[in-house]
Amino acid sequence: MSTTMPRPVTDAAALINAPRLRAKLAAAGIDVLLATAPENSYYLSGVFIRTQISIRERLALVIWPLDAAPTFVVCNIEESLARAEGSIADVRTYVEHAETPMSRVVDVLNERGLGRLRIGIERNYIPASAFEELRRGVPEADFVGADALIESVRSVKTEAETSRITDAFLRTEAAIRDAWGRSGAGDTEKTVADRMLFSMLGHGASGLRHMTLASGENTVHAHMTPADRRLRPGDTVLTDTGAHFYGFSSDMARMGIVGTPTKERMDEYTRYREVYVELLHFIRPGITAADVYAHCNAAYATAGLPMTSPHVGHSLTRMAGHENPILHPGCDLPLEAGMLLAVEPSFKPRPDQRYHIEDLVQVTETGSRILTDWSSTDRMIEFAAGSR
Amino acid sequence: MSTTMPRPVTDAAALINAPRLRAKLAAAGIDVLLATAPENSYYLSGVFIRTQISIRERLALVIWPLDAAPTFVVCNIEESLARAEGSIADVRTYVEHAETPMSRVVDVLNERGLGRLRIGIERNYIPASAFEELRRGVPEADFVGADALIESVRSVKTEAETSRITDAFLRTEAAIRDAWGRSGAGDTEKTVADRMLFSMLGHGASGLRHMTLASGENTVHAHMTPADRRLRPGDTVLTDTGAHFYGFSSDMARMGIVGTPTKERMDEYTRYREVYVELLHFIRPGITAADVYAHCNAAYATAGLPMTSPHVGHSLTRMAGHENPILHPGCDLPLEAGMLLAVEPSFKPRPDQRYHIEDLVQVTETGSRILTDWSSTDRMIEFAAGSR
Repeated sequence: MSTTMPRPVTDAAALINAPRLRAKLAAAGIDVLLATAPENSYYLSGVFIRTQISIRERLALVIWPLDAAPTFVVCNIEESLARAEGSIADVRTYVEHAETPMSRVVDVLNERGLGRLRIGIERNYIPASAFEELRRGVPEADFVGADALIESVRSVKTEAETSRITDAFLRTEAAIRDAWGRSGAGDTEKTVADRMLFSMLGHGASGLRHMTLASGENTVHAHMTPADRRLRPGDTVLTDTGAHFYGFSSDMARMGIVGTPTKERMDEYTRYREVYVELLHFIRPGITAADVYAHCNAAYATAGLPMTSPHVGHSLTRMAGHENPILHPGCDLPLEAGMLLAVEPSFKPRPDQRYHIEDLVQVTETGSRILTDWSSTDRMIEFAAGSR
Repeated sequence: MSTTMPRPVTDAAALINAPRLRAKLAAAGIDVLLATAPENSYYLSGVFIRTQISIRERLALVIWPLDAAPTFVVCNIEESLARAEGSIADVRTYVEHAETPMSRVVDVLNERGLGRLRIGIERNYIPASAFEELRRGVPEADFVGADALIESVRSVKTEAETSRITDAFLRTEAAIRDAWGRSGAGDTEKTVADRMLFSMLGHGASGLRHMTLASGENTVHAHMTPADRRLRPGDTVLTDTGAHFYGFSSDMARMGIVGTPTKERMDEYTRYREVYVELLHFIRPGITAADVYAHCNAAYATAGLPMTSPHVGHSLTRMAGHENPILHPGCDLPLEAGMLLAVEPSFKPRPDQRYHIEDLVQVTETGSRILTDWSSTDRMIEFAAGSR
């Protein structure tokens, strides 16, 4: 517990890539951005209102005019937090159940003279009913989908963001190694997962984002809850996990082995990992996300590995949600310097066995920089063959 | 760690209140229910696909015809889990990024001859873009909002659901007392929160749902991340927390005090708690949610307490999300036997002090039954005045 703790965000405004946002809004002819999705309203306000997710109808919305100060609309229950941690001075509230969030948004749009302009909305997030209410409230507005625009703004991280996200990954990686080093045959998956979480908390996490911890045949499920299956000598162990570190989150995967791997397991892992490392080093600006997928596909074919991943990585929000560019065959977005990618091809040689590694890569001006300790994945992490 | 662990759900179909669902669909003239929101597709399928929340565009949808077997549409990445844990035999998949979830839904509706019928959708969840795609795909369908209908089905729990949710609350309560009993002045909020989480894991949780752990002036924020503020003698401590226990979750609040309370604090807590207990016992079938709020409002007025809560409790999904009936002034839904309510009025006597308790209450045929250990809240839980 002696690790230095990550600090709450106190520089929210400095974390926004505001020039990129303004340029893209102007280029799209959008006068006002209305951000409703949690990753977007958090990005623009600097405060993560977690009930946006756990109590989904409690919307927190940012109204972001191209040429004027933004307004933050939150449930009155969250007002004190919005004022204490957020970077937006103009906070408006609604009383949940008595008024809808969108009614307050309509008030603000009309009051600020924004109701007849071109408004960018998240068509992939805004619920059908809320969108109807908005259209009724400002019937003369021109609505345009801005999902891709804001995602594209967020995908190029500021230096401060990169630093915080990298920190979250490194703490997670340390926690995995710490917990696995104290685990072995006879432990249940749940026991190992609990140790990992506790170690992440000790490394400064405020909570878990996701936890896959699977052994043996359970490795084939992508997102199974850690079960009471006990580790046995010879099992592979797979984790895909992440935690929240005061507003910035991780998402990474590592493989383990209980005791000494059989030659078959070792060969499978080594062949997979060689392709993986080549893929990490293939990342560079100018190529598209689909190019990376195609390269991975070809490398799998050359190595004689079956290719089963619909995507092999993704950019990520501060909370480690997937965002574009996503490394799949249909994504023609170019990689740009400053983007972060979680690279994660998967390998399933048999119906009862899957391998998975995931690292964080930064696209630089000239190529890429791997921000996590990829070199340590040259072997699967060893669990004790006997109970420790 | 000797607690008996909760078990994964193996009786998913038995957990659905199918007669209530069929009766309400028939009464509304709905031929097919299309469930997209996580709480609904989980309820109907029996498998919680957590990437529905963490990777939001990865929709998991249940097509539930009134008179025929349902179909489950999931991302191919989640197929093995859907088949292993779910109760729906007909699982269809889409390849994310290559095809949209809704394109597969449209295929199924047309293939099964359901595309010209009256289809119930969740207007408060389905994203505007997905709804447009659905309308284009089955242009002759008649769409009707079914948000309230399915919520109303879920709100009356089966016995098995009640048993599992109660179990989740009781484990949470035990974990709070365990962790607080080992904490005291000098501990940071984060240290206490970490102990609570670890204790919840020890009591069988697979992960945290939410964690508010605030002390002193931080108690006024509804949902602040536990901070590095250290507990001081005389501080009140507030938690509102919950965890996931293999598919069923908790949401409860308790108050603590560091050392011996001042008379002022003790009086505040006692006055608040008397109203709270009266409210717990006021719950009964036949009255409306708004009646409960009005009763609470009147009781606060009689006791001379300021009323600042926009709602004073709520029904809850299996994952402990808020659902109707919600105890607020505008909710005229009647309470019915079999409903569970998390009752949680709040009390804020000053700008730097808030009190909050939350218990689980079952509406019975004749009144109510409090399922958590409300009687132990007669005093705030004591933290050691010195570091332990």
